[in-house]
Amino acid sequence: MPYKETYPSVLLTDAVEAIGSLPGVGRRSALRLALHLLRQPAENVHHFTEAINQLRDGVHYCRHCHMIADGDECAICADHRRDHRTICVVESVRDVMSIEATGQYHGVYHVLGGIISPIAGIGPSDLSIKELTERVFGLENPQEAELILALSGDVEGETTAFYIYRQIETSHIKVTSLARGLGFGDDLEYADSLTLGRSITNRQIFNP
Amino acid sequence: MPYKETYPSVLLTDAVEAIGSLPGVGRRSALRLALHLLRQPAENVHHFTEAINQLRDGVHYCRHCHMIADGDECAICADHRRDHRTICVVESVRDVMSIEATGQYHGVYHVLGGIISPIAGIGPSDLSIKELTERVFGLENPQEAELILALSGDVEGETTAFYIYRQIETSHIKVTSLARGLGFGDDLEYADSLTLGRSITNRQIFNP
Repeated sequence: MPYKETYPSVLLTDAVEAIGSLPGVGRRSALRLALHLLRQPAENVHHFTEAINQLRDGVHYCRHCHMIADGDECAICADHRRDHRTICVVESVRDVMSIEATGQYHGVYHVLGGIISPIAGIGPSDLSIKELTERVFGLENPQEAELILALSGDVEGETTAFYIYRQIETSHIKVTSLARGLGFGDDLEYADSLTLGRSITNRQIFNP
Repeated sequence: MPYKETYPSVLLTDAVEAIGSLPGVGRRSALRLALHLLRQPAENVHHFTEAINQLRDGVHYCRHCHMIADGDECAICADHRRDHRTICVVESVRDVMSIEATGQYHGVYHVLGGIISPIAGIGPSDLSIKELTERVFGLENPQEAELILALSGDVEGETTAFYIYRQIETSHIKVTSLARGLGFGDDLEYADSLTLGRSITNRQIFNP
């Protein structure tokens, strides 16, 4: 009788299946983590599960930008020192965190909550695009404001960017996208030819 | 202001810290998993945390061998077709699962729940060694039974094996340990010299 797929306890089987449902966690890692949790004091395990339940049940999203927040307005939108007329459109919460980590951006955000992907069954109405459109058209003098489309460079990202552009075009807001080219410190020898080609086409004035 | 170590929500911070406390899960993976859980339906997340809580709160250990079980006796100890006079001593639940997966062993087990390690502050009384001793001395005709010390080959494993041997020596039970040598299919060129040396010393009759 092969024992490989069976576990000595129903509870362990259930826990391994639950942990193994996380992305990037295989059954072996799931078993390792389940047995680790079993060795911890019960209060630690309860604290662990409680933190996850509270996140899922208690999280708020900013009513302006849809970023995760503790109340109905995030710390960035509440910050009056930031430029509220520059809106950076991103796919996810993680993108906001990545851009904030650079310390180079002082505008605000709009989190779409995903990207248009017909294959994954995600259409414009599943994202906060309507809210973005309302936000842009609600700006005073939108032609003096800026919308940065900070989406990924793949087909889905470009489709989404184009869709958004068509929605807000008539507001005459200035629309920009992220600079693309060789990374700083990148070696020409190892650059992919698409990036290298575009870096030549979009070459910039040398400014030492 | 560096944003790298801060999260947009206290609940997210708590969840990332809880998930990041798991072994082998860094802060980046913890954030990824937290945001994944946030995107799941609430009932899936509750099922996930409930499975972990039930494992921690509801798990039983076999009263004979200390293996994880659903009741007070595990499926292996309850199986009368198995040889209850051959006891395989292992460090952990995972070791039982690994040996069971081979399909080559038909005896029973004794799970120590760890290994003697002065550095980690684990002594004999933290393990189920006393229960093992009682079990061995409780056997009828122990000199006709067998105790397999299936512990790891490092210092802690050998220390633990030697300690157990001294405890049960006077019972005259037959004590064996796992065969050690080159792995099946191993190439001599890549074998470490300790293993290769012991494989020569402990050479076996050629039995094609």
